[in-house]
Amino acid sequence: MTTPTIELIRRHGSVRHYKPDPVAPDIIEALVAAAQRASTSSNLQMTSVVAVTDPAVRRRLSELCGGQAHVAQAPVFLAWCADLKRLDRACERRGYTQVTAYVENFLVAAVDVAIAAQNAALAAESLGLGICYIGSIRNNVAAVIELLRLPRLVFPIVGMTVGWPATTPTVRPRLPLSAVLHWEHYDAAPKDAELAAYDRIMAATGIYQNRQVPVPGRPEQMEEYGWLEHSARRVAQAWRTELRAILEQQGFDLK
Amino acid sequence: MTTPTIELIRRHGSVRHYKPDPVAPDIIEALVAAAQRASTSSNLQMTSVVAVTDPAVRRRLSELCGGQAHVAQAPVFLAWCADLKRLDRACERRGYTQVTAYVENFLVAAVDVAIAAQNAALAAESLGLGICYIGSIRNNVAAVIELLRLPRLVFPIVGMTVGWPATTPTVRPRLPLSAVLHWEHYDAAPKDAELAAYDRIMAATGIYQNRQVPVPGRPEQMEEYGWLEHSARRVAQAWRTELRAILEQQGFDLK
Repeated sequence: MTTPTIELIRRHGSVRHYKPDPVAPDIIEALVAAAQRASTSSNLQMTSVVAVTDPAVRRRLSELCGGQAHVAQAPVFLAWCADLKRLDRACERRGYTQVTAYVENFLVAAVDVAIAAQNAALAAESLGLGICYIGSIRNNVAAVIELLRLPRLVFPIVGMTVGWPATTPTVRPRLPLSAVLHWEHYDAAPKDAELAAYDRIMAATGIYQNRQVPVPGRPEQMEEYGWLEHSARRVAQAWRTELRAILEQQGFDLK
Repeated sequence: MTTPTIELIRRHGSVRHYKPDPVAPDIIEALVAAAQRASTSSNLQMTSVVAVTDPAVRRRLSELCGGQAHVAQAPVFLAWCADLKRLDRACERRGYTQVTAYVENFLVAAVDVAIAAQNAALAAESLGLGICYIGSIRNNVAAVIELLRLPRLVFPIVGMTVGWPATTPTVRPRLPLSAVLHWEHYDAAPKDAELAAYDRIMAATGIYQNRQVPVPGRPEQMEEYGWLEHSARRVAQAWRTELRAILEQQGFDLK
């Protein structure tokens, strides 16, 4: 069961090495037009995109986004933003006052943005371009807001590098479907067997450099560093803890 | 500049009328496998999907989701959920404690979920299926959580009906590209001309039933109800104000 689009989806891998060739502005316009075709809650269209091509700004973004070299190297950086400012203007023109104080007001916009961004990602990949999502746009979000001059009620959700791939991206294995898809209701049974199998598959890819880690509770015994250790270390740390304060500054109160 | 995938994206419209024919389980599996291929932050894979086919449960979901008939009518309902429970288990297995207290912990998962859902949407449409996103899964979110038996650290982000279209969906006009795409930095100049032009285009589609509304500040003068009035009325209301409390109950503190 396949189609050209499903084949395209199956080939996806994040591209972190780009050729120096520019991406023409009409291509970027086509990607954003594709993004606009995505579903949007009540047709409110709460997405804006800032396309950055200026090399100095891309270098600065690279520093702000955890020093990722491909943010400076890719010819285009797209900042995908939740934008309720347009709707504020609609309210002003029609004599209403917008409610932006609740979690819902931010969440509905964030979902709109992510769905739109994925349309653009697939449109780009269908044209032979490569992309990489940049979640670290939220690492120094106040500085990004200032750099891109985002006004009140606009907030960067995720970044994306776009360019012509210099290497063929790796297609990484994913969790078994049975760990992700639940029928009729959520199956709360522990998925330990699935997680352990995937842990070994990911360790075998060499992505974790064949490191060894102690077995929990048996520090003298070593085992391979796999997806469980990778993931546990990642989520045991507090990340981007100032997001809420910056969201409030931008007018999203998350009540 | 087009490709089969871009053409598919351009044809998208939400489907709200379905044939009674079922969608085979292996098709649903193919859609969720396509969703899994999407980018995921640090490969943490924070998405779970509950696929509901039971007619009684779909009818109940329809009631909970604002009485939308197509939620009961479509043969499959997919509940796209942020899932940090799997990572909690990874932490238990490896001797760590997961941090889930910050806005970031919820946002990163919500973005993962939405990107994955859009892959599934396009995969479905490429197979001739129709879909409709169901944001109103958040209308009565506590009841949905109970109905789908979602445990702590699992939260429904968005729903999706899936089925064989009984009608060809309408492709709605979108805002002009110039209202959405900003070059180098956010252009704060008011986009009043673009918004007004789009307002008239949407009024002309008849979607708002050719209603009339008073001109703001001149109540004796009437004009067509368009996108500005539609949008302003929508966002001037407080929606889903209990979301934050339910998120906290599920373990997402949004600090």
